[in-house]
Amino acid sequence: MMMSLDGFVAGPEQSAENPFGIGGMQLNEWLLPLKAFREMQGEEGGEVNASSPIVEGWFENVGATVMGRNMFGGGPGPWGAAPWTGFWGENPPYHHPVFVLTRYAREPLEMQGGTTFYFVTDGIESALDQAKEAAAGKDVSLGGGATAVQQYLAAGLLDELLISLVPILLGDGARLFDNLGEARPRLEHVEAVEAPGVTHIRYRVG
Amino acid sequence: MMMSLDGFVAGPEQSAENPFGIGGMQLNEWLLPLKAFREMQGEEGGEVNASSPIVEGWFENVGATVMGRNMFGGGPGPWGAAPWTGFWGENPPYHHPVFVLTRYAREPLEMQGGTTFYFVTDGIESALDQAKEAAAGKDVSLGGGATAVQQYLAAGLLDELLISLVPILLGDGARLFDNLGEARPRLEHVEAVEAPGVTHIRYRVG
Repeated sequence: MMMSLDGFVAGPEQSAENPFGIGGMQLNEWLLPLKAFREMQGEEGGEVNASSPIVEGWFENVGATVMGRNMFGGGPGPWGAAPWTGFWGENPPYHHPVFVLTRYAREPLEMQGGTTFYFVTDGIESALDQAKEAAAGKDVSLGGGATAVQQYLAAGLLDELLISLVPILLGDGARLFDNLGEARPRLEHVEAVEAPGVTHIRYRVG
Repeated sequence: MMMSLDGFVAGPEQSAENPFGIGGMQLNEWLLPLKAFREMQGEEGGEVNASSPIVEGWFENVGATVMGRNMFGGGPGPWGAAPWTGFWGENPPYHHPVFVLTRYAREPLEMQGGTTFYFVTDGIESALDQAKEAAAGKDVSLGGGATAVQQYLAAGLLDELLISLVPILLGDGARLFDNLGEARPRLEHVEAVEAPGVTHIRYRVG
């Protein structure tokens, strides 16, 4: 999760046109020039720096991904007649099954390169169970966004948290650590990596 | 500033008896065993680890400190007949002039070891000006708490910010980055230091 120093993973007024909200694109500035990221987009060239192993690790040994509806995109509500197919084009960078948390049922969506989106309407435990089965022993990655992370964290279902802390102050927007209710998960620092424009911190969740 | 991963520098329900609020003492857990910290309290022994140079640096080349009333302590309101003399005993670890932001005037309070507390009632710029003059070319340190940092940050009067990010979630309390209004100060990462139970991140404020 890319998080501003004041705790936001997106700025205010998120919309289909501006999924990161006002100012939120600054959360990506360290990421966009990286070779490791450009390759995911099918582009050539780019920089290699201390963030590169972190980004390369995003999909390492990952057999399935879970994400919230907002992260898949297309706005809230029913899917409509010509539904959104995700932010990642014809060949998304996942290359494995992706389970999208939503209240609106939808047929699985098979993309190029091994990514199939499954739409899960019966809750976070079900999505995790399906993702675990699909991952067949590999890791399950939780892609975000904030609401999905809050739900899994509060339910004690996260093992690890990788925060990419970006030195900006958004002032408003979607807070990553919010709505935790009475849950106070214990975190243990695993590693911190200094890189241009970002500090990556990995935590084990107890 | 010691900050929880969810952005709090104190837990909820701060009081004179519990100045860090509920759960807030966890923010100090990395600090208390350190030799560098114990020495400030006039105690012997203690651990040396990657946090030691950070803590030793707190007062390095610092000629004066500014702090908010809450950080000095004694609760809100007028000072009363037998006023509070600070959280640090007879010989506070500052050993230089300390300027306390308050709405209630009070005579300067001279402690042992070179620490004198001055009570400033005419605002943050005045406190900074007085501290700069007292520092005579050395640095001025802003000790906290959250409100004082917010005010100086919003006014563009901070040059550097050292965040000691503690892997706990407090869920509620005093947020460090709050009440910034329209101010969006630019921060630049200077260094990150991994240490047991904490990650120290130093930012330059643009």
